[in-house]
Amino acid sequence: MSVDGPEYESLLDLRRDLHRHPEPGWREFYTTARLVDELETRPLDELHVGPEVLAEERRGVPDDAELDEWAERAVDAGARADVVDRLAGGYTGLVAVLRRGEGPTVGLRVDIDALPITEADEAPHRPAVEGFRSENEGFMHACGHDAHATIGVGVLDAVAASDFEGTLKVFFQPSEETIAGGEPMAKGGHLDDVDYLLALHVGLDHPTGEVVAGVDGFLAVSHFRAEFAGASAHAGGHPERGRNAVQAMAAAVQNLYGIPRHHDGATRVNAGLVGGGTASNIVPESAFVEGEVRGETTELMEYMDDHAARVLRAAAEMHDCEVEIHDEGRAPGGESDDELAAVVGAVAAETAGVESVLDSDQLGGSEDATYLMRHVQERGGLAAYVGVGTDHPGGHHTPTFDVDEETIRIGVDVLSEAIERIGAERPGSA
Amino acid sequence: MSVDGPEYESLLDLRRDLHRHPEPGWREFYTTARLVDELETRPLDELHVGPEVLAEERRGVPDDAELDEWAERAVDAGARADVVDRLAGGYTGLVAVLRRGEGPTVGLRVDIDALPITEADEAPHRPAVEGFRSENEGFMHACGHDAHATIGVGVLDAVAASDFEGTLKVFFQPSEETIAGGEPMAKGGHLDDVDYLLALHVGLDHPTGEVVAGVDGFLAVSHFRAEFAGASAHAGGHPERGRNAVQAMAAAVQNLYGIPRHHDGATRVNAGLVGGGTASNIVPESAFVEGEVRGETTELMEYMDDHAARVLRAAAEMHDCEVEIHDEGRAPGGESDDELAAVVGAVAAETAGVESVLDSDQLGGSEDATYLMRHVQERGGLAAYVGVGTDHPGGHHTPTFDVDEETIRIGVDVLSEAIERIGAERPGSA
Amino acid sequence: MSVDGPEYESLLDLRRDLHRHPEPGWREFYTTARLVDELETRPLDELHVGPEVLAEERRGVPDDAELDEWAERAVDAGARADVVDRLAGGYTGLVAVLRRGEGPTVGLRVDIDALPITEADEAPHRPAVEGFRSENEGFMHACGHDAHATIGVGVLDAVAASDFEGTLKVFFQPSEETIAGGEPMAKGGHLDDVDYLLALHVGLDHPTGEVVAGVDGFLAVSHFRAEFAGASAHAGGHPERGRNAVQAMAAAVQNLYGIPRHHDGATRVNAGLVGGGTASNIVPESAFVEGEVRGETTELMEYMDDHAARVLRAAAEMHDCEVEIHDEGRAPGGESDDELAAVVGAVAAETAGVESVLDSDQLGGSEDATYLMRHVQERGGLAAYVGVGTDHPGGHHTPTFDVDEETIRIGVDVLSEAIERIGAERPGSA
Amino acid sequence: MSVDGPEYESLLDLRRDLHRHPEPGWREFYTTARLVDELETRPLDELHVGPEVLAEERRGVPDDAELDEWAERAVDAGARADVVDRLAGGYTGLVAVLRRGEGPTVGLRVDIDALPITEADEAPHRPAVEGFRSENEGFMHACGHDAHATIGVGVLDAVAASDFEGTLKVFFQPSEETIAGGEPMAKGGHLDDVDYLLALHVGLDHPTGEVVAGVDGFLAVSHFRAEFAGASAHAGGHPERGRNAVQAMAAAVQNLYGIPRHHDGATRVNAGLVGGGTASNIVPESAFVEGEVRGETTELMEYMDDHAARVLRAAAEMHDCEVEIHDEGRAPGGESDDELAAVVGAVAAETAGVESVLDSDQLGGSEDATYLMRHVQERGGLAAYVGVGTDHPGGHHTPTFDVDEETIRIGVDVLSEAIERIGAERPGSA
Repeated sequence: MSVDGPEYESLLDLRRDLHRHPEPGWREFYTTARLVDELETRPLDELHVGPEVLAEERRGVPDDAELDEWAERAVDAGARADVVDRLAGGYTGLVAVLRRGEGPTVGLRVDIDALPITEADEAPHRPAVEGFRSENEGFMHACGHDAHATIGVGVLDAVAASDFEGTLKVFFQPSEETIAGGEPMAKGGHLDDVDYLLALHVGLDHPTGEVVAGVDGFLAVSHFRAEFAGASAHAGGHPERGRNAVQAMAAAVQNLYGIPRHHDGATRVNAGLVGGGTASNIVPESAFVEGEVRGETTELMEYMDDHAARVLRAAAEMHDCEVEIHDEGRAPGGESDDELAAVVGAVAAETAGVESVLDSDQLGGSEDATYLMRHVQERGGLAAYVGVGTDHPGGHHTPTFDVDEETIRIGVDVLSEAIERIGAERPGSA
Repeated sequence: MSVDGPEYESLLDLRRDLHRHPEPGWREFYTTARLVDELETRPLDELHVGPEVLAEERRGVPDDAELDEWAERAVDAGARADVVDRLAGGYTGLVAVLRRGEGPTVGLRVDIDALPITEADEAPHRPAVEGFRSENEGFMHACGHDAHATIGVGVLDAVAASDFEGTLKVFFQPSEETIAGGEPMAKGGHLDDVDYLLALHVGLDHPTGEVVAGVDGFLAVSHFRAEFAGASAHAGGHPERGRNAVQAMAAAVQNLYGIPRHHDGATRVNAGLVGGGTASNIVPESAFVEGEVRGETTELMEYMDDHAARVLRAAAEMHDCEVEIHDEGRAPGGESDDELAAVVGAVAAETAGVESVLDSDQLGGSEDATYLMRHVQERGGLAAYVGVGTDHPGGHHTPTFDVDEETIRIGVDVLSEAIERIGAERPGSA
Repeated sequence: MSVDGPEYESLLDLRRDLHRHPEPGWREFYTTARLVDELETRPLDELHVGPEVLAEERRGVPDDAELDEWAERAVDAGARADVVDRLAGGYTGLVAVLRRGEGPTVGLRVDIDALPITEADEAPHRPAVEGFRSENEGFMHACGHDAHATIGVGVLDAVAASDFEGTLKVFFQPSEETIAGGEPMAKGGHLDDVDYLLALHVGLDHPTGEVVAGVDGFLAVSHFRAEFAGASAHAGGHPERGRNAVQAMAAAVQNLYGIPRHHDGATRVNAGLVGGGTASNIVPESAFVEGEVRGETTELMEYMDDHAARVLRAAAEMHDCEVEIHDEGRAPGGESDDELAAVVGAVAAETAGVESVLDSDQLGGSEDATYLMRHVQERGGLAAYVGVGTDHPGGHHTPTFDVDEETIRIGVDVLSEAIERIGAERPGSA
Repeated sequence: MSVDGPEYESLLDLRRDLHRHPEPGWREFYTTARLVDELETRPLDELHVGPEVLAEERRGVPDDAELDEWAERAVDAGARADVVDRLAGGYTGLVAVLRRGEGPTVGLRVDIDALPITEADEAPHRPAVEGFRSENEGFMHACGHDAHATIGVGVLDAVAASDFEGTLKVFFQPSEETIAGGEPMAKGGHLDDVDYLLALHVGLDHPTGEVVAGVDGFLAVSHFRAEFAGASAHAGGHPERGRNAVQAMAAAVQNLYGIPRHHDGATRVNAGLVGGGTASNIVPESAFVEGEVRGETTELMEYMDDHAARVLRAAAEMHDCEVEIHDEGRAPGGESDDELAAVVGAVAAETAGVESVLDSDQLGGSEDATYLMRHVQERGGLAAYVGVGTDHPGGHHTPTFDVDEETIRIGVDVLSEAIERIGAERPGSA
């Protein structure tokens, strides 16, 4: 059994359409509406969108002006206005449910948001060459979530056409890149009865034809936004009257990267987005840093987080400024369950196009899929994070990232077969 | 003779209208059009706008998208579209000419641009209380150029009504705050035959009723924009693949402020506007600093400029990035001529409302009026920079700056009388 | 068989005497002479000191004045002048050889140098309480090398008294802390015929009674010294004439710690000793940083080393200074051979006082024993780095570090028994 | 009247002997003893040394070990042990008194300490060429205090031989470079009855033959020593256990230089001597900065001082360290009295070898002579700080600084004549 023919062509069309319309977290209006359009033509049992799939409390939601701008842009690009209206307040994302008789409830989680990266616009970058480059200038599907969402749709089709017995729920999750979407989706209710959860990522430096049955080594992560407030002044006439928020920010950046490494494992820190001031001749009154810290364990992440807060506060004090530190999102570490990964691995080994199967691999990155995985695991269920290799010319999060579309076929085949087998075998049940 | 009654009321209306529509350098579309409207009702001999008054080569001009946005905004706010069209490419500003028989040519230079500062919106800030607060959110007449332009109009009226013999040219100069407008206006042709040049600034920490006949102590200044280019990477997965432009920028900022002070006099440095990166989880690929250096002399400014360039380049190299440094505008130092200032001082001492006259004062700031002053002085003419005190609640370049409107009356009276007397006395001529 | 009675007391006396006379790398004059005194009373076959045991080329040797000062201090403290003379030029250390018939050549490497740390001088620090605190103020055996050297002597005695057949060479290596002694001792000739090499470290956060049969996870390391040269000036009168080497150094330190972490594994950086300038009122003409970088692999260490050099050079350039970077010592990563470790583990499990045996452990530090281990392994031999636990109140490299002297007994017993068994079993030989 | 012949030769011998024995503040044992030797041969009325001339409370006194070392070195170099004994505790310096009948009391203040600079040792540096280079390696008379002390002796001779009526007191002040000696000497009692005070400095970028009658523009200054305390740790094994005092120090240095410049006048900051840490592989537990701030006024100095304290404290906090800030010495600003300077100027204009007399000049440096000047001025007396030009090859505080010895003759002539005339004219007395 393999996705093929017009059905496969249709998936590629979907992927390329999503690729053309990359949207950052909580702003996936076009993406959600497009998926609704696509899925409403299927014989699904339930389709829940926006506020129905997310807990109310969310981090990192942009202000109304920005939400409105993206909503309008989505409608301008052809999104259905009635769906976009249902996503008001940035409650994006959806959950599709297929009920096929008695059997376990299997969840598949795919993420749908994009990144603030300007896509490469020259050969050999295929989206540029073949005309499906980002139409939202400055934003890009540079991590393959367009493929993830597409695979999610393909798996629904394939499982619907199979002998699967049980319930399948596909979670199309918003705001993964800002690690803000995982927690509210985990708490949104639809995950509570899931017995087995699969999550999916393409690439991760694995080539097309390679599958990782159960990825481990998720870094716990915390995103923050620090806002420095000082006082402006005429830079020529009265520099001494200023309280320079940009100097504070620069001191913070220099010293954030200097938080000591740790014996117990890998740590990370990044000041990924910064800004401040207004004009050359004005002492800057305000500045900000949006950044993150990570750790191989939650403890290591918290070690970094504590240090980062100290650095930010002292940098403000050093230049007589104030600082507010906002927690923008967090994700814990996580582990795949071997018993569930074993089923995926066994299926993958028999799947056409798969040349190599790894039991496990260390991610070295973060993912708020861990919120969903933990939610299931804490309730006695099993979870596995599956890596589906893809030849990607540029690295993840770079302007030349792209996926080998063959990966979509492989992803659909491996996951749909695995889901069918999970329904039959119920791994982990004595 | 004093500006009064409905004429004065009309000037206050003009000032408040300009205050409501603050526009930054090369984007003074509304301002220029409003002044044209105002002046076309006067019996002037010539009125030149935009490309007619500026040399072609200009620094710091925004891109077309931004120019268009401000031009549209101006028209939306009521600016005449035909005038705005004549300013295409950001050639803003105007020169008004009054010819009154034989006699010297006297120039008056006023500047018309505003600052990227968000205006205070609460009592006791009068523009907020009385309803003429900035309608261009984020921008503000925080340095009194609205009053300057208004005084320029008032002086034209007053001189037209006087016994002045000679020619009066009022230069409404754009882009003073970015020190980009002075040089092209000095080279625009209209200044070549000017025998006496007066320039004007309100406030400067002098209260209403105080006049400085000839301000000195202009700091030479240079504005720069440095753009750092590195490489993005996934901050969790592969931090070592990034070349972190924000780290480079932060190192630059920290060390720019550390350029050694100088024995020979005052120096300044400011990193007034900075930014970089895209998202918390991406190693920043690009960053920038817009800043300035100043010196009590041109040599001191160049000392600072050389050091700043070294710091910017080394900061880039330190983090394996590239940097491009763009020269965004410069102004030399300058001095008022005593003989011309003496005429202003004598007039001021006799003017109603003036309680104190200072021969001179040290500005401690910069001004690209120095380009115009030098242009006249190099051709054998005389120049004086006149300070007209005003009670200002907040400092220059702060959100609560405002002018005491009585200053407008004093400014018009002192300058128009001085111009009449210059015509009669021809100071400096043997 | 266990070291006991007066023999054990004598070892404790030796350890405490060495503890009282801590000497940093290439300056172990007292230590070497004291060991010669001790060993000359034994029926050894050979005793080689100084230039006889080290390759000529060495890094990080102090200047003659400092060597002379330490040599004098050693003689003043009771070291034999004739031995000290043989160590001229800082060729410290020794190799003791015991030949017992046919059989393999087994090497034991112990290190003998101390650290520039001021020892705690209050209870409950036992050396302070019991009167064997450091007499070289500012230096301290804060890493247990006093115990290592003592165990080396004890093992010679125990093996001499055993049925061991083969040759035993004990390498008393200088300059481990500065990773300068390992390479010249590896190349000194005496190691060339060694078939099995054991190296030893006490503590490493393992308690008394725990033994690690084969430690792994050595970080590759590189030490550097960077010397910044600028120009002095009167800080009040002419700050602009200075080229500030301390500013360069501070910028370097801030940015060294900011070298990006790496996907492939642990990295480290430390600016461990810095200085610069002469007086408050003089712009500093010179400054220096002594530091190190480490990596989980040699490649990772070199990644750090390349970045460190870039940072140091750019920091100098930023402040118009020059910098010279000196390579002060390096050590590669390393691994214990399982077959040899297995013998140690088996012996340890039967040794009185040993309660727990770990096959392996990750060091997370560096050691130039790796030079000796590699030298043996590259010639077809086997090597194992043995950890002998000890309750240590303070951490390694802190003022309150101390060893539980029971460890000396355990160390001698485990290693001497292991050596005897290696002679008999010849692990790894087909 | 001019110093000449053997008397002048003897002064040159004295100057060169002092030059050979440069001693830093509170350690001028040789210098004081040599001056006592010299002066005891003169028919003086009083000669007070050490504790007799200084208030008890002093800043920046080294510890006893260092004082003893310099005292021994002085005796080894030929200083009289009985005099050195009288200076115990670092109470160096002396006051010589000449009483010549009725008349005002005139003070002359000269300073006697040297700098921690290594003197140039190659041609064309004259002390190197002619054999009177510093014998205290690392220290140097790089500011001309050797000439000052010599001129003080010469003036005593010349005034003794003149018709002067009144009392002359010459204050040979220690510890000027560390601005620690002025305050205790001002409070030492001998200054209380002084009616006129002259102070002296050679050079200051004025050539031989130029005299400044009354120097102004002294920068107020404050010296500080900040000691950072963190925690050491093994840099490879447990970097996270360290609290890195060197990182704190480096952050402090970077940001000290970034304290904003001030509208009201010149400011200075210098981190002149820094250090920290112990070894490459240990996270540094301690670090320090010795530095200074200056201001054109005392208020500006205090502005800098407040900011410096904030930066130092925040830098410590940023890296979880503590900091202690010690006040090491201060000097206020100061002004010369015109009436007294006028006498000096008139005399200078008539003195052989003087080609140019300036009424005044801006120092742009600091001097704790201001303590003595203020002390006299506050009691109704007059003070003037006299500049005696000298061709100096290298700048003040650089390794190639030297004085043109002709300056000694000019200095003695101008000052002794001025003192005689002050006695006669009593300037400022109605």
